Amino acid sequence: MNELWNKYEEYMFKISAYGLVLGTTSFDAHTVAPKGGSAYRNERMAFIEGELYSLITSDELYELLKALNADESLDEVHKKIVHWHLKDMERTRYLPKEFFVEYSKAVMDANVAWEDAKHRDDYQIFKPHLLKVIELTKKKLSYLPDGDKGYDALLDEYEPGMTMARYDEFFELIKEKLVPVIKAIKEKPQIDDSFNYLHYPAEQQAKLARVIMDYIGFDFNTGMISTTEHPFTHSLHKNDGRITTHYYENSLISSIFSVIHECGHANYNHSVRDDLAETYVFDNMSSGMHESQSRLFENYLGRSYHFWDNLFEPMKQIFPEQLKDVTQQQFVNAVNKVECSLVRTEADELTYPLHILVRYEMEKGIFDGSLDLERLDEIWDEKYQQYLGIKAEKASQGILQDVHWSDGSFGYFPTYALGSGYAAQFIKAMKKDLDIDECLANNQFSKIKDWLREHIHQYGGLYLPSEQIVIATGREFDPHEYTDYLIEKYSKLYNL
Amino acid sequence: MNELWNKYEEYMFKISAYGLVLGTTSFDAHTVAPKGGSAYRNERMAFIEGELYSLITSDELYELLKALNADESLDEVHKKIVHWHLKDMERTRYLPKEFFVEYSKAVMDANVAWEDAKHRDDYQIFKPHLLKVIELTKKKLSYLPDGDKGYDALLDEYEPGMTMARYDEFFELIKEKLVPVIKAIKEKPQIDDSFNYLHYPAEQQAKLARVIMDYIGFDFNTGMISTTEHPFTHSLHKNDGRITTHYYENSLISSIFSVIHECGHANYNHSVRDDLAETYVFDNMSSGMHESQSRLFENYLGRSYHFWDNLFEPMKQIFPEQLKDVTQQQFVNAVNKVECSLVRTEADELTYPLHILVRYEMEKGIFDGSLDLERLDEIWDEKYQQYLGIKAEKASQGILQDVHWSDGSFGYFPTYALGSGYAAQFIKAMKKDLDIDECLANNQFSKIKDWLREHIHQYGGLYLPSEQIVIATGREFDPHEYTDYLIEKYSKLYNL
Repeated sequence: MNELWNKYEEYMFKISAYGLVLGTTSFDAHTVAPKGGSAYRNERMAFIEGELYSLITSDELYELLKALNADESLDEVHKKIVHWHLKDMERTRYLPKEFFVEYSKAVMDANVAWEDAKHRDDYQIFKPHLLKVIELTKKKLSYLPDGDKGYDALLDEYEPGMTMARYDEFFELIKEKLVPVIKAIKEKPQIDDSFNYLHYPAEQQAKLARVIMDYIGFDFNTGMISTTEHPFTHSLHKNDGRITTHYYENSLISSIFSVIHECGHANYNHSVRDDLAETYVFDNMSSGMHESQSRLFENYLGRSYHFWDNLFEPMKQIFPEQLKDVTQQQFVNAVNKVECSLVRTEADELTYPLHILVRYEMEKGIFDGSLDLERLDEIWDEKYQQYLGIKAEKASQGILQDVHWSDGSFGYFPTYALGSGYAAQFIKAMKKDLDIDECLANNQFSKIKDWLREHIHQYGGLYLPSEQIVIATGREFDPHEYTDYLIEKYSKLYNL
Repeated sequence: MNELWNKYEEYMFKISAYGLVLGTTSFDAHTVAPKGGSAYRNERMAFIEGELYSLITSDELYELLKALNADESLDEVHKKIVHWHLKDMERTRYLPKEFFVEYSKAVMDANVAWEDAKHRDDYQIFKPHLLKVIELTKKKLSYLPDGDKGYDALLDEYEPGMTMARYDEFFELIKEKLVPVIKAIKEKPQIDDSFNYLHYPAEQQAKLARVIMDYIGFDFNTGMISTTEHPFTHSLHKNDGRITTHYYENSLISSIFSVIHECGHANYNHSVRDDLAETYVFDNMSSGMHESQSRLFENYLGRSYHFWDNLFEPMKQIFPEQLKDVTQQQFVNAVNKVECSLVRTEADELTYPLHILVRYEMEKGIFDGSLDLERLDEIWDEKYQQYLGIKAEKASQGILQDVHWSDGSFGYFPTYALGSGYAAQFIKAMKKDLDIDECLANNQFSKIKDWLREHIHQYGGLYLPSEQIVIATGREFDPHEYTDYLIEKYSKLYNL
């Protein structure tokens, strides 16, 4: 490798060192750190974020990247790494450091306030922080070269190439195709999932999580699980992937599917090939691509009948009383029950995109100025009434349910629905090569992971999502495959 | 406050930010981090340690401290802060940065190897790392201005003013006074502690730990507990104090007293007064002073009868089967049973200093060159035979039992015995003001903590241990109070 590249790698080592200690401290703050230390911690983390910001936006790095970008001797892979890095850098450099530190501090404080507000079921605790994060996000847009595009600029950060126009079209299709199915299901006999609401002690749920993770082949030498208010995945390195979950003792299903979901994320990063694992593309896949892998694990695999062939009996052994009258078929039907409910992370696949639609429309309104920011909690409830026909009685099941706005992740939500769409296309392609049900039944989950590694995971974020989809499936993304899959699945389940 | 001081505080803020992220990452590595990430992690942590090293040894800070040291307008407290900081800095500045980073990396790697070696019961895994850490510690001495003093220079780092000559005298007294008592006890009927070796599931032990910590008044808003191979305390801030323990399912007592011990450490830092809590003296108390507080909690309080007045019944509720035939008096007798055993952290108060003596003599021999470094594990066993009359069958109960040498903490061990000695004097002074047994019986542990805060904790490391002892007790340290306490206690327990 040439000298310039060596210099770049040396520089990137420093960045990765700051990333590691900050990422670890952030993970610690979300999981085990005592709340009483958060003021002290956040001030200092914001300072170190500033140090990192100086490194990632420095003239030294910029010159290096521009020189590498002009270097024709680089191979295609290295050219791409430089391309993505330079593209992001050119955006980031527009933000003044003081602003970056202020923003970092504000989201950390907002996160602490959000968790407190959710526990106490009091939106007023979170509201000033949310408004501050919105204000700072608007300020951020004012610095960016494409900031005049407003929400479109944010959407592009999470999913390159996506715009409101394209998402509008996507969600129009969703509404057109799925709302009639949801209505039809309401007229049908409902699935009994009463067993789900018995008492499931957290300790046993943790044991079950471990059994499921072992089945998936999650390697505890290179990963771990912890608990948080809101589940997430944080891959500090290919060999240090952390997932979290939340055990609700009055629900069996909630943590099961959040664990499978997060394992999908963790497995993506864990499977990036070695020569890319410590490069810029290790973790720059689009959010839609990342969510496609988590939603694929959670829904396309986790909610299928044969996923439970090797797990249902072990689960019954952990909860013999609670599940004594439940068969595998009843269980699988129950985890696919369609219901207009309040909490996104627990929603069935069919109504799920409507939850996303609520958030997407609100974010659009926040950034085009059409929403009254004083009434965000009420607007949330109104939109749930409009799209799902129900209203939260508690803010913790309404506007406070998700962590994302406290993180300033405006533009992220729609990628959940889009990723679910990508996943339908991936599954269809996988089925040409593999009998998925047979793999699941025969305890060969690794074959599924091998397919995903070969066609998707190994590349990390080397390709645009639109390119990656063609690489894996041979076709451009077609959202009809998503709606077709859902209509077929639920027509069968409910005898429509 | 003057402008110079403000500049100093601004500078110290940066140092504290690096300290926070490094401390958190280290805590994470010891507790929950997947082992597979340790190579990646250690390299990067060592780099950030180097960044911190540059800050704490910079000319800018040195000039600031010298200017502040010459500033007569500072009050006494600020003068002392500057004094201690400058004293340490003048030592640290002698180490080249490359050496510091190499040393940091070596101890992190040694720590990983030690844990692996202990799990696998194989000293050979740890041996090359231990020899490397010894070699680097000797190299460190070669840089230091007082390095020609050898082990004395290391002893002084942990306990200012202590030397081999003074420790030799201390341990001579221990041997002279305590060995005859231990011999006499061997001739007496032995205490039955068979209940301790029944099965105690880790989950229930964790519940018990929580009950004990609540009784002590440990505040989970400003602290937490986790598990590690070797228990320790890490106070990232006054309001972020972390303790760890290890639950052995074949012992009830082991984790109980390690939890109480670590609570003693955590409580010390948590009780430093606010105006000192974010200064240099927050955590620069001597090791002997720190151990005096942990050993005071563990032994002088935790192993006393009345400590259990409010805890014995709750403990029996957690372990009703295992403890069904055990009375509070039997339990307290058992936790004070004198036995020449292999594991320091589980030793009774009377034989404990002999465990320390083994380590102290070995460290002396390592640094004066009289020990054969190829035979450290065998020498360990020989010394246990000599002083305690027993020999470990497994390295995990021999030379691998303690974490300290992997950390490079040569010179630390003797402070455990010394701190136990300090504690005897503190307890005697406390008894003049408080009826300790009554406080314990009446669930007024806070009164004991108030006394400790007023006389010791509030000051952090503002004073030399020799000064702090006079402040708290009105007298200089007299080790006879320690041996008198032990002789009286055990003569009564064993009817000598």
